[in-house]
Amino acid sequence: MTADLPSADFEARLANAAALVEAVLDEALAEAPLSGEIVRPDRLLTAMRHGVLAGGKRLRPFLVMESARLFGVPEERSVAAAAALELVHCYSLVHDDLPAMDDDDLRRGRPTVHKAYDEATAILVGDALQTLAFALVAAPGCHPDPAVRCELVLELARASGIGGMAGGQMLDLAAEGRFADGAPLPLADPDIRRLQAMKTGALIRFACLAGALIGGADGQGRAALTGFGETVGLAFQIADDLIDLEGDAESAGKATGKDAARGKATLVSIKGADWARDELTRLLATASGQLAPFGEKAAVLLETARFVAFRSA
Amino acid sequence: MTADLPSADFEARLANAAALVEAVLDEALAEAPLSGEIVRPDRLLTAMRHGVLAGGKRLRPFLVMESARLFGVPEERSVAAAAALELVHCYSLVHDDLPAMDDDDLRRGRPTVHKAYDEATAILVGDALQTLAFALVAAPGCHPDPAVRCELVLELARASGIGGMAGGQMLDLAAEGRFADGAPLPLADPDIRRLQAMKTGALIRFACLAGALIGGADGQGRAALTGFGETVGLAFQIADDLIDLEGDAESAGKATGKDAARGKATLVSIKGADWARDELTRLLATASGQLAPFGEKAAVLLETARFVAFRSA
Repeated sequence: MTADLPSADFEARLANAAALVEAVLDEALAEAPLSGEIVRPDRLLTAMRHGVLAGGKRLRPFLVMESARLFGVPEERSVAAAAALELVHCYSLVHDDLPAMDDDDLRRGRPTVHKAYDEATAILVGDALQTLAFALVAAPGCHPDPAVRCELVLELARASGIGGMAGGQMLDLAAEGRFADGAPLPLADPDIRRLQAMKTGALIRFACLAGALIGGADGQGRAALTGFGETVGLAFQIADDLIDLEGDAESAGKATGKDAARGKATLVSIKGADWARDELTRLLATASGQLAPFGEKAAVLLETARFVAFRSA
Repeated sequence: MTADLPSADFEARLANAAALVEAVLDEALAEAPLSGEIVRPDRLLTAMRHGVLAGGKRLRPFLVMESARLFGVPEERSVAAAAALELVHCYSLVHDDLPAMDDDDLRRGRPTVHKAYDEATAILVGDALQTLAFALVAAPGCHPDPAVRCELVLELARASGIGGMAGGQMLDLAAEGRFADGAPLPLADPDIRRLQAMKTGALIRFACLAGALIGGADGQGRAALTGFGETVGLAFQIADDLIDLEGDAESAGKATGKDAARGKATLVSIKGADWARDELTRLLATASGQLAPFGEKAAVLLETARFVAFRSA
């Protein structure tokens, strides 16, 4: 397995899915209040749109839609859950960028929400985006079966709450020494893996599980896809850490070397870039095995894993 | 209608409901990770408990449980939704107390979460409490029918998102002149009513609607209870503003005169304390009419409205 460029087909498919997701997000963030809402205050709405409608690969939604497609579900019937997951991801970015957290001024080359607006607005933006995510999943348009919608709400909550993404961000702040004497904690391999499985892995795992739930997968199908999601989550993080270690800021589209500057240990900084490249190859083999039960139908998902592992930004 | 003291029966019932809610909250915030969670980081968990398990009347959950009881639903079967609503209320308090928002150091005589911990932790506490609220509602223990659980998720999201509580907080910050030249905006009666219907009214309205949904109420029952919820929401806010205008800090258990100090117009500051007392009496008559279809069964709910309107803290 090598760092092949993604195929033109794959890139077109990814862009097409992103456009579908963008349309759902744009509609969810429309001006008119929904039934049961009173008004949507302008400042909050435009700030929410700033935090969400900034382009991006929409990788997590793509994993939802491609996982669901294994079970014959067309994109139009998985895009609501996919968009909800993206809202959770965006809310976490808005809050993580706050001065009290990672204190970032730029995201994808644009001012972060608290820079373009202010901190109070950014806090409310994150809060209201999270709320909107759960509304999208619970609404009948997400899936005809309310039992499936409830399961999606529950799994999204597990992936993003104290035992998932939010808890992972807490561990990450602690690892930077924010609550002790200010010195970064020397984390060992299993600590780093746990932190990353929560902070970034849980949502990626959820993406693949969500596709299985929407598609009515049986226990084996669910297990295969959650396993695959965990593998992609690991590959995503290692690739990210490798870009931070080796990448130049221009092609990465963001500041690199930030982990080292923060004194933060990653698996890549501990074990080295060569280990990381070998590990990514091993993870792709694992992913291939996890997708084997789905045969040729899973070719796009496998290419997604390859894209995640060998991307440069 | 006069400012009678609440009956001993009523107070016992309120305390009993609060204890049931407290037990569910305590369990939801237990140390052991749930299925699908990895770990629950200590610092985040204890800070979440600090933000939630601080006592209080648990008025919103009480309204859920008493509304559901009109339809023969015992408290044990409405307490999960009731506790979820309390989690949303608590998350909003934790975020509203942040320096970038209302900048409060004390709540119920204890340090606010960002004072007891730090700002980053308080942001994550609010985030993870909101997530946990939706998990509680979507879990099978909330209601046997997943369609009802989805409707509860959706209505809770509508009440707490951009078109409800979060949007109301945005309007409130704007009214304090936070985004213009710093001078408070001179709000007129309808602006203030809209702001309050969103910031505090929407969750109280949801409380009563949730009871109707859990109890399988028909359209008329739902309409009666949402109307009652809106009336209680109005009474709650007017009583609150009256306490802020007239109350002494000691009996109110919090600083009074804050609205005036912030240059914030309330219906009570515009129309006066005599108008407020008359309006509370009128609202109680409205509430009584809205509950009339339920007959004697609604006596506790009506007493709750009276308690809300004529409380001193």
